[in-house]
Amino acid sequence: MPHAEHNTTSFQSVAILIIGNEVLSGLTREANAWFAAKTLFDVGCKLSEVAIVPDIQETIINTLQRLHQQYDAVITSGGIGPTHDDITMQSVADAFDVPLLEHAETIQLMTNFYGEDALTEGRRRMARLPQGAKPIICEQSICPGALIQNVYVFAGIPHIFASQLESVLTHFTTGKTFIRQEIEVSLPESSFARELGKIQSSNPDIEIGSYPGRCGKQPTGKICISGIDKKRIASVRNQIEHMLKDKKNHENQ
Amino acid sequence: MPHAEHNTTSFQSVAILIIGNEVLSGLTREANAWFAAKTLFDVGCKLSEVAIVPDIQETIINTLQRLHQQYDAVITSGGIGPTHDDITMQSVADAFDVPLLEHAETIQLMTNFYGEDALTEGRRRMARLPQGAKPIICEQSICPGALIQNVYVFAGIPHIFASQLESVLTHFTTGKTFIRQEIEVSLPESSFARELGKIQSSNPDIEIGSYPGRCGKQPTGKICISGIDKKRIASVRNQIEHMLKDKKNHENQ
Repeated sequence: MPHAEHNTTSFQSVAILIIGNEVLSGLTREANAWFAAKTLFDVGCKLSEVAIVPDIQETIINTLQRLHQQYDAVITSGGIGPTHDDITMQSVADAFDVPLLEHAETIQLMTNFYGEDALTEGRRRMARLPQGAKPIICEQSICPGALIQNVYVFAGIPHIFASQLESVLTHFTTGKTFIRQEIEVSLPESSFARELGKIQSSNPDIEIGSYPGRCGKQPTGKICISGIDKKRIASVRNQIEHMLKDKKNHENQ
Repeated sequence: MPHAEHNTTSFQSVAILIIGNEVLSGLTREANAWFAAKTLFDVGCKLSEVAIVPDIQETIINTLQRLHQQYDAVITSGGIGPTHDDITMQSVADAFDVPLLEHAETIQLMTNFYGEDALTEGRRRMARLPQGAKPIICEQSICPGALIQNVYVFAGIPHIFASQLESVLTHFTTGKTFIRQEIEVSLPESSFARELGKIQSSNPDIEIGSYPGRCGKQPTGKICISGIDKKRIASVRNQIEHMLKDKKNHENQ
């Protein structure tokens, strides 16, 4: 397990579990997995899987158990508020077979923050954590997320999710920096697919992706290369640019 | 299995599998699951799960097999182009343990479209389908998606994905129409959580979701109610509005 004091993480794989009917019914466009993908990439950590599931306890528990076993760390988003559809903390507790208990320190923090009279049943509900979990307090909310084993339980509200991720970002910081470069392409993918495949095969340390697009009838796309070694990136970029130039010349003949 | 001639579907549950490193590394914001969620909701069909996985054959195969067994239908997005990172068709074939074969009719269509000379190796690659699959041809692309058993294999490029979904939308059309209404709320969730939970318990046929937000320091949020019976929606809306009014009056005393 990583600790906040660590400068770098040992996480090789991280999954995100988005919990919310509102995403699956198209009411809301998913934003937190996207934010996390960008934020983690910037600290040298790549997401391995995103799962989006409804507010159904059995589904949350099964998915969480699968991701917890399969990946080094799991981040969940959503379902930790005070209403009836907020069932994430209970589901996490059930997934680890521990009770959900009021967290005394958190109750104290909330009492200080809201005043004793305003510590409603709904707010007390948000101070419950799975037994053994540590609260994750961020700048944007007095109501805690939780860390239990390798599972980070965050809020679904985007500014709170972002702040909670920020507060434990060192846990995910690998010390590597990914370099990503894009090459604009104005040829159809099918015209250079074989040659690009050969370049990928001879450079397995660099990830090469091809993303087609079009502008009117004109093919426009990009080839994206990423890795951690600047010189290797430059070399692969060079090979791709030469290959594309040859293709273009050949097309114009 | 549904057929294009059907007016309504028997699908009770649909999952989407998004295949693409570009989404997991934060390069691209996921758009197709969002589009599908909205489009399916409008024809009375709700998504049960979204999975986003990288361009790794073993992961695609395992995830596809799980979703295929767990849900009535699965839509995949991405990885059916001509380049080395397009491994979805091969993965689908492997998942069903069938060979990936050139589809004769599709080759004929592509020959007519591009001309024989321009039917490059890359384009031929896109005419390969898992044995037994039917091609899904849409208005936006001559390169086919595929339907095999309960799995719909679509492109990742958004306008092609949308067009392919459109071309088989009757497969997903339930004949029900979801009604969704939103109620604006200017109280903190914790102040009405218990009462809202009671309303949900006594109205299990209507889905009630609470989505908090804020404007500066002011809580603003929405309660979303959805179902298929207009009168029942109106009744639940009424109960919620009364409850919120009581809370607001109580707050102002």
